[in-house]
Amino acid sequence: MAGSIYGTLFRLSTWGESHGDGIGVVVDGCPAGLPLTEEAVQQYLNRRKPGQTRYSTPRRENDTVSILSGVFEGRTTGTPISMLVKNESQRSSDYSEIAGYYRPGHADYTMDQKYGFRDYRGGGRTSARETIGRVAGGAVASKLLEELGISVCAYTRSIGPVSINYKNCSKENIEKSPLRMPDLHASEQAEELLEKTMKEQDSLGGIIECIVSGVPAGIGEPVFDKLDACLAHAVLSIGATKGIEFGAGFDAAAMRGSEDNDGFTADACGHVRKTSNNAGGILGGMSDGSEIIFRTAFKPTPSISREQQTVNKAGEPITVSVRGRHDPIVVPRAVVVVESMAAVAIADLMMCSMSSRLDRMKDFFGKTK
Amino acid sequence: MAGSIYGTLFRLSTWGESHGDGIGVVVDGCPAGLPLTEEAVQQYLNRRKPGQTRYSTPRRENDTVSILSGVFEGRTTGTPISMLVKNESQRSSDYSEIAGYYRPGHADYTMDQKYGFRDYRGGGRTSARETIGRVAGGAVASKLLEELGISVCAYTRSIGPVSINYKNCSKENIEKSPLRMPDLHASEQAEELLEKTMKEQDSLGGIIECIVSGVPAGIGEPVFDKLDACLAHAVLSIGATKGIEFGAGFDAAAMRGSEDNDGFTADACGHVRKTSNNAGGILGGMSDGSEIIFRTAFKPTPSISREQQTVNKAGEPITVSVRGRHDPIVVPRAVVVVESMAAVAIADLMMCSMSSRLDRMKDFFGKTK
Amino acid sequence: MAGSIYGTLFRLSTWGESHGDGIGVVVDGCPAGLPLTEEAVQQYLNRRKPGQTRYSTPRRENDTVSILSGVFEGRTTGTPISMLVKNESQRSSDYSEIAGYYRPGHADYTMDQKYGFRDYRGGGRTSARETIGRVAGGAVASKLLEELGISVCAYTRSIGPVSINYKNCSKENIEKSPLRMPDLHASEQAEELLEKTMKEQDSLGGIIECIVSGVPAGIGEPVFDKLDACLAHAVLSIGATKGIEFGAGFDAAAMRGSEDNDGFTADACGHVRKTSNNAGGILGGMSDGSEIIFRTAFKPTPSISREQQTVNKAGEPITVSVRGRHDPIVVPRAVVVVESMAAVAIADLMMCSMSSRLDRMKDFFGKTK
Amino acid sequence: MAGSIYGTLFRLSTWGESHGDGIGVVVDGCPAGLPLTEEAVQQYLNRRKPGQTRYSTPRRENDTVSILSGVFEGRTTGTPISMLVKNESQRSSDYSEIAGYYRPGHADYTMDQKYGFRDYRGGGRTSARETIGRVAGGAVASKLLEELGISVCAYTRSIGPVSINYKNCSKENIEKSPLRMPDLHASEQAEELLEKTMKEQDSLGGIIECIVSGVPAGIGEPVFDKLDACLAHAVLSIGATKGIEFGAGFDAAAMRGSEDNDGFTADACGHVRKTSNNAGGILGGMSDGSEIIFRTAFKPTPSISREQQTVNKAGEPITVSVRGRHDPIVVPRAVVVVESMAAVAIADLMMCSMSSRLDRMKDFFGKTK
Repeated sequence: MAGSIYGTLFRLSTWGESHGDGIGVVVDGCPAGLPLTEEAVQQYLNRRKPGQTRYSTPRRENDTVSILSGVFEGRTTGTPISMLVKNESQRSSDYSEIAGYYRPGHADYTMDQKYGFRDYRGGGRTSARETIGRVAGGAVASKLLEELGISVCAYTRSIGPVSINYKNCSKENIEKSPLRMPDLHASEQAEELLEKTMKEQDSLGGIIECIVSGVPAGIGEPVFDKLDACLAHAVLSIGATKGIEFGAGFDAAAMRGSEDNDGFTADACGHVRKTSNNAGGILGGMSDGSEIIFRTAFKPTPSISREQQTVNKAGEPITVSVRGRHDPIVVPRAVVVVESMAAVAIADLMMCSMSSRLDRMKDFFGKTK
Repeated sequence: MAGSIYGTLFRLSTWGESHGDGIGVVVDGCPAGLPLTEEAVQQYLNRRKPGQTRYSTPRRENDTVSILSGVFEGRTTGTPISMLVKNESQRSSDYSEIAGYYRPGHADYTMDQKYGFRDYRGGGRTSARETIGRVAGGAVASKLLEELGISVCAYTRSIGPVSINYKNCSKENIEKSPLRMPDLHASEQAEELLEKTMKEQDSLGGIIECIVSGVPAGIGEPVFDKLDACLAHAVLSIGATKGIEFGAGFDAAAMRGSEDNDGFTADACGHVRKTSNNAGGILGGMSDGSEIIFRTAFKPTPSISREQQTVNKAGEPITVSVRGRHDPIVVPRAVVVVESMAAVAIADLMMCSMSSRLDRMKDFFGKTK
Repeated sequence: MAGSIYGTLFRLSTWGESHGDGIGVVVDGCPAGLPLTEEAVQQYLNRRKPGQTRYSTPRRENDTVSILSGVFEGRTTGTPISMLVKNESQRSSDYSEIAGYYRPGHADYTMDQKYGFRDYRGGGRTSARETIGRVAGGAVASKLLEELGISVCAYTRSIGPVSINYKNCSKENIEKSPLRMPDLHASEQAEELLEKTMKEQDSLGGIIECIVSGVPAGIGEPVFDKLDACLAHAVLSIGATKGIEFGAGFDAAAMRGSEDNDGFTADACGHVRKTSNNAGGILGGMSDGSEIIFRTAFKPTPSISREQQTVNKAGEPITVSVRGRHDPIVVPRAVVVVESMAAVAIADLMMCSMSSRLDRMKDFFGKTK
Repeated sequence: MAGSIYGTLFRLSTWGESHGDGIGVVVDGCPAGLPLTEEAVQQYLNRRKPGQTRYSTPRRENDTVSILSGVFEGRTTGTPISMLVKNESQRSSDYSEIAGYYRPGHADYTMDQKYGFRDYRGGGRTSARETIGRVAGGAVASKLLEELGISVCAYTRSIGPVSINYKNCSKENIEKSPLRMPDLHASEQAEELLEKTMKEQDSLGGIIECIVSGVPAGIGEPVFDKLDACLAHAVLSIGATKGIEFGAGFDAAAMRGSEDNDGFTADACGHVRKTSNNAGGILGGMSDGSEIIFRTAFKPTPSISREQQTVNKAGEPITVSVRGRHDPIVVPRAVVVVESMAAVAIADLMMCSMSSRLDRMKDFFGKTK
């Protein structure tokens, strides 16, 4: 399958390897008339960029985006938006030795099995640089959602065993914390743990939580393209993710129906609202008008300089220590990647939902004639 | 979006409501030559059928399948396989009152928002009877995988707070346990808990674990249609699921890289093997040749006869007690549904993977000429 | 590929063989709220039904449709609409001998090559009965388009060398002519030719023309899913078609730009109109607000009782005379099939076009909140 | 719909406007291991390039391609292949005046209707420069088909009323003729006609014929994704096309069954062959092992300097003369575009066909384990 294309009506086609000429994305299906500038996209990319803190690779990559098509006089034209980020800081020699063996926790072995050989330089297409295309595309989706009154906000919920305490959280803290934790006390604890882990030549994982506000009720296409199913597809396609849960998630499995069920009520204007949100904003695979909440687990960075046992291509046992410039934790930089994939999935499903009712179609086309 | 169609090359198109004429599925893209009988499909449906134990709805539904097309002289022909299960035991009067209000934990409200009105009889398309189409389609996928040396096995891992102990488990126990738990001791404990919960007019949720063996390395299409992303899409499209995790899953988020990384080794024949399986059989979104392992969380059945607060369509607060014949736990009957969706997702990705290498394509077409 | 599913948002999934239990279609993605009855669908199927005139097979097939799902209280619910037509008049013995050889002009050989064997009874899936699913699905699409002010009308333009004269045509004539020619004089001439051809144990082909009125400007998704490209895909998927052309079509290739270009003008209300329609209602792959016009060529029925040379599966030369009950001309019965595929393609593209402009999306979602 | 992406397993995602930074394509799903260089792709682009003869626009565009990803050490890696051609010779001032009115025969009006405004510079995305992405992608597909023993060859069959005579044709002549006609005598006649037409400030259309050799039997996915239906979709998505026909095409509509049917025979080795090819190499929507033949009609270039009547955006009648640098005939440069789209459609369908038979799947996966 052509696996580098996502979406039905709002589509990303991403490309690029760690050590090729660049990384990019084509966004196809974005509606015409959306204000879009390189600066706006760059802001999203800057949140993903390495070198922001000492907890990310010291590689200097500006990751400057160029919009090559699809925008005219500051607005999208409805035609494909091609965006390009040139690769700058590659040192291919760093990686040459990994061509011959399989790094634990990496896709070296599976790539070789699937394709017969691989571009081993910096992990090639399996490098985290691949997410640049996702973030540039996600920036466009986020801008579109913003125009429709929808916001997507993700943050670090935990790093290793250190979790945030909701009592200490504020949205403003997220960008203040080098780890993107909305609880600055937890952030400090996590930083200490990271320092210790780095000294031990090891790495950590964590959990990202994402909240989407303002999605109208009824988005998601049962029975296979439910909102949660599509969000899961989009988010779990990000490298290093190991799971996703919505609302009460895995905890719901241990609840009783009377606890888990969210009651319905009506607000002063007669709008139907829920009295709790164990559902995470999704009922029967469709948005229910409340906040959409999900969490996704990231495994620890597999690239560690500590010695590990593996085999080379000949099947001979060897000991390796993964060198190069690697993040001891991917979670803080992945926050904007999670937001991006959520935005893309929701933008796509919103477009797909526009033909769900004849009365709305008649109204829509009645005006275009 | 046309949400009732799943897949790229191996495709399910399911249809049917709880109280319509029947439920069915069209399987498109199944290869020609696969032995297939109604009996074989029926065996899968029987595992989903209600009335097997006292922990499922006492409705009598035989759920007898007919294959209407696509099979000739006992083998699939490569054309669409249409399968039909007639509805038998509908009592529409049971449900008429729910037309006017929104049951907590159900899709009544979101369906009304999306479509403007709904077939309220027995939940219509949101009924668990919808999964009949998935299981009939999954039976075909499972038979196909079986021919390719692949087996899919799911079971109940936990019900409410009661979990299996792997030391007590055996595959044979699964069908011996009325709750499909491979640990019969845990099964008894869970049964006791269920009895108590039923008396309290309440319901329980649980976790299903699924193991897929025999998948060759390299299945899954990065970067968006990774094996885990596609399995998540397929499995989380099942009603009542709230999360999914692969291998070490959410626990991986609290591990260190040195713990989580699976080492590589080689067996006596020189085949590359892993020394552990925290990855759950998937590296970089592609199968790595070891067992694929995932778990999915089911919320407790939302239909409980205990009184709950909600509103009617006018937004007026009312108290409801959901009557009718409902399972106090959906997990045991959902085991075969999880297997089905896993089988369908993997069958589809295997087909899509056949063109990943020029050497294999040349070999393949060299023979067909 | 799963080739029996068509469409992106409005989707048909058809199934069924000539001599299986039945033929059917699942329509997925139809908006909720569309009035739909079995009678309405039956009217379309009756136009396709054999035995209407002496120029079609004398098989008695009532082709009675049942709607099994997706309709509640007379309106579509937004869930899949499954429709079934049971097969009634199969005589498998008629066909048993064709299992061993390849009929000229038929798909016997290609089916064997692709699938390894075939359901040879009555042509199996390659039988013209396959179009029942298209017509039932097309009936739904036509009803939807009707609600949006769009009509689709096809008719026989020529049979063998006999063409209609536009001066003699009226829409009312179409159903008066046994050959569905809007020019009754031409129809009589064609009937005479058919009589002669039938006596000579031979068959004829012809051309169907289709006009779609009322499509708003801007439908079609450049650069690959242009309106003409998608119509061509849909229409040329009908068996026995050999070509399609739009507006001036192949004649445009011999015109000069100054002749072929349609000028623009404005009507009394200031609406932009074209002064001619060589474009056939499509400019740059998008509808231009004028009538959409296309023609498609059908080859003569390949099943003729006259003797023909062919080979059996062993490659040995044999002489065959195709027996059974066959139409000497498929064109009149194919008129409604062409309408159906055109309606489906246009309904699908209209849905896909709803997200082309941000202002319209904002307007749309502004109301749904 | 996201209309700038084509294909199921072998996919093109094209982007770019006439006067943006460049034009490009991402090829997703190309198998790993295909030898590919920029030089190879450039050869295809050179055949499309303007300025080759006096019958094409005198714009100087080198249209130099860069491969930005997906190739490592001279071979494709299985990851997306991104290719970029920078725009060089834009003079935006040429076009500024067309922003306010609708050129006859162009998509100005339909673009405005669909998207609300348009990038009017050089036609924006509707410019023939858009085909650069198709040709670069088609070059990759052609190289892949070549490895599988398949060749695609198109040429000019007619220009205005001047057609080739098959008796005078040779493949070598195609590139000798400035109009890409394989009959040099017809080419000279057509050149004379073109000179005359250019003097009269007018333009011509023509017909391109395409022959594909070496496709194994059984390619194409009935009933909707038949080989002819998919080729029609791909080819009629090219700008300025008005029709397509296969084999005997529209002439078949006037034949009798006994004339049109191709007989079967067997060659010395017992391989089944046809005795004629009215079918154009396709039976029942699947390749039959003989040459695939189709023809497509191109309308005359709509941009003519002769005066034409149209309206401006306010609906006021005006007289326009389309200036700028335009081809008086697009056909010769479109030959390689037709080849490209045919190659892409066939490559995609071949990949999709690999899972049609269980025996072949078992054989395939038996080896990969």
